[in-house]
Amino acid sequence: MSEHTVSALPVPGPEALDEDLQKYFRICEEKLGLVPNVLRAYAYKPHRLRRFMDIYNELMLSDDSPLTKLEREMIAVTVSSCNRCFYCLVAHGQQVRALSGDPILGEHIALNYRTAPLEPRQRAMLDFAWKLTETPNDVNEADRQALRDVGFDDAAIWDIAETASFFNYTNRMAHGIEMMPNMEYHAMDR
Amino acid sequence: MSEHTVSALPVPGPEALDEDLQKYFRICEEKLGLVPNVLRAYAYKPHRLRRFMDIYNELMLSDDSPLTKLEREMIAVTVSSCNRCFYCLVAHGQQVRALSGDPILGEHIALNYRTAPLEPRQRAMLDFAWKLTETPNDVNEADRQALRDVGFDDAAIWDIAETASFFNYTNRMAHGIEMMPNMEYHAMDR
Amino acid sequence: MSEHTVSALPVPGPEALDEDLQKYFRICEEKLGLVPNVLRAYAYKPHRLRRFMDIYNELMLSDDSPLTKLEREMIAVTVSSCNRCFYCLVAHGQQVRALSGDPILGEHIALNYRTAPLEPRQRAMLDFAWKLTETPNDVNEADRQALRDVGFDDAAIWDIAETASFFNYTNRMAHGIEMMPNMEYHAMDR
Amino acid sequence: MSEHTVSALPVPGPEALDEDLQKYFRICEEKLGLVPNVLRAYAYKPHRLRRFMDIYNELMLSDDSPLTKLEREMIAVTVSSCNRCFYCLVAHGQQVRALSGDPILGEHIALNYRTAPLEPRQRAMLDFAWKLTETPNDVNEADRQALRDVGFDDAAIWDIAETASFFNYTNRMAHGIEMMPNMEYHAMDR
Amino acid sequence: MSEHTVSALPVPGPEALDEDLQKYFRICEEKLGLVPNVLRAYAYKPHRLRRFMDIYNELMLSDDSPLTKLEREMIAVTVSSCNRCFYCLVAHGQQVRALSGDPILGEHIALNYRTAPLEPRQRAMLDFAWKLTETPNDVNEADRQALRDVGFDDAAIWDIAETASFFNYTNRMAHGIEMMPNMEYHAMDR
Amino acid sequence: MSEHTVSALPVPGPEALDEDLQKYFRICEEKLGLVPNVLRAYAYKPHRLRRFMDIYNELMLSDDSPLTKLEREMIAVTVSSCNRCFYCLVAHGQQVRALSGDPILGEHIALNYRTAPLEPRQRAMLDFAWKLTETPNDVNEADRQALRDVGFDDAAIWDIAETASFFNYTNRMAHGIEMMPNMEYHAMDR
Repeated sequence: MSEHTVSALPVPGPEALDEDLQKYFRICEEKLGLVPNVLRAYAYKPHRLRRFMDIYNELMLSDDSPLTKLEREMIAVTVSSCNRCFYCLVAHGQQVRALSGDPILGEHIALNYRTAPLEPRQRAMLDFAWKLTETPNDVNEADRQALRDVGFDDAAIWDIAETASFFNYTNRMAHGIEMMPNMEYHAMDR
Repeated sequence: MSEHTVSALPVPGPEALDEDLQKYFRICEEKLGLVPNVLRAYAYKPHRLRRFMDIYNELMLSDDSPLTKLEREMIAVTVSSCNRCFYCLVAHGQQVRALSGDPILGEHIALNYRTAPLEPRQRAMLDFAWKLTETPNDVNEADRQALRDVGFDDAAIWDIAETASFFNYTNRMAHGIEMMPNMEYHAMDR
Repeated sequence: MSEHTVSALPVPGPEALDEDLQKYFRICEEKLGLVPNVLRAYAYKPHRLRRFMDIYNELMLSDDSPLTKLEREMIAVTVSSCNRCFYCLVAHGQQVRALSGDPILGEHIALNYRTAPLEPRQRAMLDFAWKLTETPNDVNEADRQALRDVGFDDAAIWDIAETASFFNYTNRMAHGIEMMPNMEYHAMDR
Repeated sequence: MSEHTVSALPVPGPEALDEDLQKYFRICEEKLGLVPNVLRAYAYKPHRLRRFMDIYNELMLSDDSPLTKLEREMIAVTVSSCNRCFYCLVAHGQQVRALSGDPILGEHIALNYRTAPLEPRQRAMLDFAWKLTETPNDVNEADRQALRDVGFDDAAIWDIAETASFFNYTNRMAHGIEMMPNMEYHAMDR
Repeated sequence: MSEHTVSALPVPGPEALDEDLQKYFRICEEKLGLVPNVLRAYAYKPHRLRRFMDIYNELMLSDDSPLTKLEREMIAVTVSSCNRCFYCLVAHGQQVRALSGDPILGEHIALNYRTAPLEPRQRAMLDFAWKLTETPNDVNEADRQALRDVGFDDAAIWDIAETASFFNYTNRMAHGIEMMPNMEYHAMDR
Repeated sequence: MSEHTVSALPVPGPEALDEDLQKYFRICEEKLGLVPNVLRAYAYKPHRLRRFMDIYNELMLSDDSPLTKLEREMIAVTVSSCNRCFYCLVAHGQQVRALSGDPILGEHIALNYRTAPLEPRQRAMLDFAWKLTETPNDVNEADRQALRDVGFDDAAIWDIAETASFFNYTNRMAHGIEMMPNMEYHAMDR
């Protein structure tokens, strides 16, 4: 653990950003009360930041997904728990608390989703996400069938797989450059 | 292993695609002689396909990266070897053969990069990619320092980390929906 | 996850307890505001409960240990994080928050102690606890020397080893009988 | 491996012990022909020794357990085999030989309990102990049901879980301070 | 990776070999177009080379095995993939291509046999070989029964087990002395 | 564990063996007092038995090895401990007891070689054998150098590597066909 509070690589000041990114950061401040550190860290590579925000917003925030926003956040936290990613556990744990209105559910998923009082549908979804994270080579048709058995269709299976896969990317970025979450998350929605 | 040749989830025919994607696929045919199956599989979710192509092209094909295209492909194959991702080993193994003009190098990286006759710089880069894939929680400042010791700067460290992280996403998508590579890759650049 | 709120095995009502245990539980209520569920679960076997309380109080609460109470709780949480023990992460995570007055420190240790801003002494202590938990057969004289190098003497090394070992016992009891923590812990000391 | 024959930490001479412990050690000598080295090592912390003996005797020697003493020792040896704890394999392996009158059974359990000619009841008991040791987070209701299916009731399930958990504590103490068993065990009950 | 092209230990020139081995190497040259580097490496210990050739030829080339030569080579490649043995993946991967006349099958087995379009019989055979390689202590009667269920008799089960076991020997020799395959294999039978 | 006492596959009676094997078995009876069950099990495939005996005798019994017979047996037991092979631990554990005249040494190596009071030369030899067994892909020049540092030359490094590799073969055969050792070994040389 080093002294930095955002990333082990350089983090540009907001004044150094292109106009579109400065605007985006201001909107974050207004809507969320903070600029997520992942964006500040990614601003080191502005083109990457734009791509990252595009794919992130499409996956996690779009309204036409077969998964609810809460379900997507539960997958994010489960994957991050498997990978022990402090950044994502803190940032997305807060999202689970906020979206569910259930602060304890967030703790269950962050610490050990198997202890959470889940519907079979959600449990199956998180079992798939965990397995795809921990032993991706063992995932096979039987695992997709287990999702179908609790009511997920092909479009949902895609999204479960892609959301879990995507957080295996972000978790590793956080580990790889030692990204630290905004401290504000810790106290929110407890 | 099922009977399909692209993905375990539905794959839309080219005629069902939006115009921009139809055009993109035609360009692939012309330039590469094939439409990579990853694009055909992703076409099941057109918005995701667009996001995926954006980030993929930015990471792997942009000209202003501190890593050569060959180095990026070597990282892709090393990560895919760790995750035993058949799709990416075949598709990106071919890229390593093509970009290096050395068919045996592709075999080394796909089967066991530690046996490859690599410069210390490349070996350090692949060691970092492997570790970030296999035990992300063990990556720390000493691993970044090992990259600096062979001459990589911060911008390069970012790209090594992000490329390795990204293939942990694509590898899991391939495992999660059982994506199969185009058969043409196998014979190319041997 | 089943429906119970304390344990998968029978939990006696307070009225069924021997007088000494009833009294102990009343003291818990008065001092802590709750009877920790581990005690209620252990009351299924009263003799074991008495032995458990003796050893627990000796290890975690005695005043003449070379480790502070906070340090002992940090070891408890680190071991429980390695074992993904929901009960102990919740109950002892609260203790770390309470004893340190630093709610964020508790999150760091519960989710990934390697991200916590620790003094070298504490980091070495937790590295030892983690290794003794995860790969006990790899612990050797070099690991004890690493503790000596940051100032721990033999008496402290014993206590680090015993505290870490003890939570490998309680974590497994919690997993083995599916013990659930009191819900009050979640909101305390945030 | 160092030169010591009891522990890597200081071991007080018998004359330095409190009267109650001196008496206890004399009784050991008379009854067992030796003072187990675990007691001599623990005497470095007399209060801990007293707690350790209390819980050990309650778990392993009490007459009102739903498990026979041999069964408890078989669990001890199975857990110690999983953790590769030399001290406990030697000391409790001897106990299995003595209590069963079957020296070969002790070898089976110490080296690989799956090769032992066991009744289904005992096999299920040791499978549970092994799993709780190796992958505690994977233990769930199905594992408890497997114990019920071969006739164990709740009280027995508790004792299987607690005995297995307890040896995960003692094994780690032995690894953590490099405890060595009395040499006399090796030749006994062959 | 060192500079050598055969082995990290000394490799005698052909002129230094005993007459029988010189003759054997000449036959290899005539029949295969090359002397496999494993033989050149083993020539450092001529008696061992003779024993190795005897057992290798008996296992892999004898005509009275219940397994086809292709099946034996598929086992060899599957085991070598699990152990990530570059030498055997290259040399026996070429054999799978040559014997099957299907260059893509060789890629499937070398990179991830679970993606190969296999008959249930072959899939069961390779599942057994993989498990015996990765977690030998978990192999039990149920695994042998799975082989019987797809039609293998006792004589075939023996050969599946022995072929898989044997390549756990050769893979480790290749890793242990850093054996490198003849470069000619890479281009053959593509 | 099944009921058989030699192997899960058919074991021919001695009268069914070819003359050379009958003679060999009679010599075993005379010299060792028993026919090792591995030979009785292998007699199911007489050609394989002959090859196995050839390579076994060359590796373990030849007089011109740079390793003593005891050292070769110590490697055999260490590898078998890593693989938890009951057959080889029992049969070769007895050999370590017999050749060393030190029954406790055999226990150390069978249960956990790291606890054995070994010379640096022997410790390095067993560390290499363990690593080549457990993580063969991690073995590299530094491991061979560690052997050179304690005085082993190239010829000895070969034999350490080959002996360790060979027992990865025999251990898997024993697991694969559930081979059981002769009961006489247990009591010998205690």
